[in-house]
Amino acid sequence: MSRRPIGVFDSGVGGLTVLKELIRRLPNERYVYFGDMARAPYGTKSRETVTRFSRQIVRFLRTRDVKAIVVACNTASAVALDDIEKEFDLPVIGVVKPGAKSAADTTQTGHIGLIGTEATISSGIYENYLQDYRPDIRLIGKACPLFVSLVEEGCIEDPVTTEIARRYMAAFRDTDIDTLIMGCTHFPMIEDTIQRAAGEHVRLVNPAYETAKGLQELLTEYDLLNDEDIPVHEEAYKFYVSDAPDRFRRIANLFLPLSIAGAKQIAIEEY
Amino acid sequence: MSRRPIGVFDSGVGGLTVLKELIRRLPNERYVYFGDMARAPYGTKSRETVTRFSRQIVRFLRTRDVKAIVVACNTASAVALDDIEKEFDLPVIGVVKPGAKSAADTTQTGHIGLIGTEATISSGIYENYLQDYRPDIRLIGKACPLFVSLVEEGCIEDPVTTEIARRYMAAFRDTDIDTLIMGCTHFPMIEDTIQRAAGEHVRLVNPAYETAKGLQELLTEYDLLNDEDIPVHEEAYKFYVSDAPDRFRRIANLFLPLSIAGAKQIAIEEY
Repeated sequence: MSRRPIGVFDSGVGGLTVLKELIRRLPNERYVYFGDMARAPYGTKSRETVTRFSRQIVRFLRTRDVKAIVVACNTASAVALDDIEKEFDLPVIGVVKPGAKSAADTTQTGHIGLIGTEATISSGIYENYLQDYRPDIRLIGKACPLFVSLVEEGCIEDPVTTEIARRYMAAFRDTDIDTLIMGCTHFPMIEDTIQRAAGEHVRLVNPAYETAKGLQELLTEYDLLNDEDIPVHEEAYKFYVSDAPDRFRRIANLFLPLSIAGAKQIAIEEY
Repeated sequence: MSRRPIGVFDSGVGGLTVLKELIRRLPNERYVYFGDMARAPYGTKSRETVTRFSRQIVRFLRTRDVKAIVVACNTASAVALDDIEKEFDLPVIGVVKPGAKSAADTTQTGHIGLIGTEATISSGIYENYLQDYRPDIRLIGKACPLFVSLVEEGCIEDPVTTEIARRYMAAFRDTDIDTLIMGCTHFPMIEDTIQRAAGEHVRLVNPAYETAKGLQELLTEYDLLNDEDIPVHEEAYKFYVSDAPDRFRRIANLFLPLSIAGAKQIAIEEY
């Protein structure tokens, strides 16, 4: 039972930044990753559509005999996690709740910034979780859609990305946020640029760290932690995509120095 | 028969720049527009996936009793048009062939530039058509993926778009192109910026003009031109999308000053 893999999914490549943290914390686990490249991005799409896509992916991951699911996409975690938890009899963890918890633990002023996709910001889900932890917290959200394209085009240390970051961060200028949640898995790739634009007094929160910790607790609770003490070789990781794997492989190498030569395409609409 | 509508489709909002030219040239026609917002963009996806999506859309448009199809998306025209023409018994026109013809008629040096999505550039389809018209023509292609996001974020007259245009146009610096095909429906929205970056000696070609002309010829050939002499009121145009219509309505207003209040969502995977 505990040797079964963990299913991890995202709209595309962004979730690989989460997978990296999972592997770092839980190197004995096997992973099956699904990237929905044919229908990416999710961040500009409606709740209903993202939920439908997420359901199909969880159905697919179940056919791979996964023991737990990590929703490694902020948008899907924001809008579809509740439905997935209700419908499937599997331990599920998203990146939003751990990200919110980490931010609530970090802030001193009680004012937190959130950057993410349009769908994540407008879902209001981070506010909900933050209120649970600390009702006094004030959250200021700012959708940063261009960051996703810039990262995927490799504009990592780039004056254009710096200029776009400057514009987006202007939303926080007259606030006293001391903590900023990177509420999109692409954003840690340009963490340095975001940090400079936000100012050194702002602590950036990457929900992936806390998600890996949360997954460890979840697996422990369900007695599903792999007790073999041999780290899994990266070639044992399985990658699936909904489009031809070429572009996934190419961009994935930007995100994660892993061997993903064996990424396979599957017809996700059939699940 | 001739009063039936014309089906027009695109991965999202970009095709509205084509619809605009169709309406301008053929104001007596009715139009049914489909934007595949749930799976947009197409330009980063594989030939096979874009062809599958296009087939579903043509099947849907047939249920709306269309008399002809305009593939108002360069990527779908580049990779899926042949299959659609073979499989469906309907007059079909894409934007690539008219764009290539227009460029071949325009160039004096015989050197043509092409900007578009990754999928359009790598398809090689513009080369093929250009060779048919004039075997001596040389085409230099450059994928410009960031333009799509910049336009959708409203960065129309914007220093960031200017800088990105400068970088992309550097691909043509040591060539003697005198003609540049805007091989993506989003690009006419930033025509002025592209013109400045390319230089005033370069003639920009917008395939939409020539497509409208080509459609008129096609309808004439099939005796399908609407012979009523009353221009159709814009409220008679029908808009369908694969995602919740809000974002489509919002961005569409940037593209086209039309009333699209009645855009309806349909489940495109079921076709």
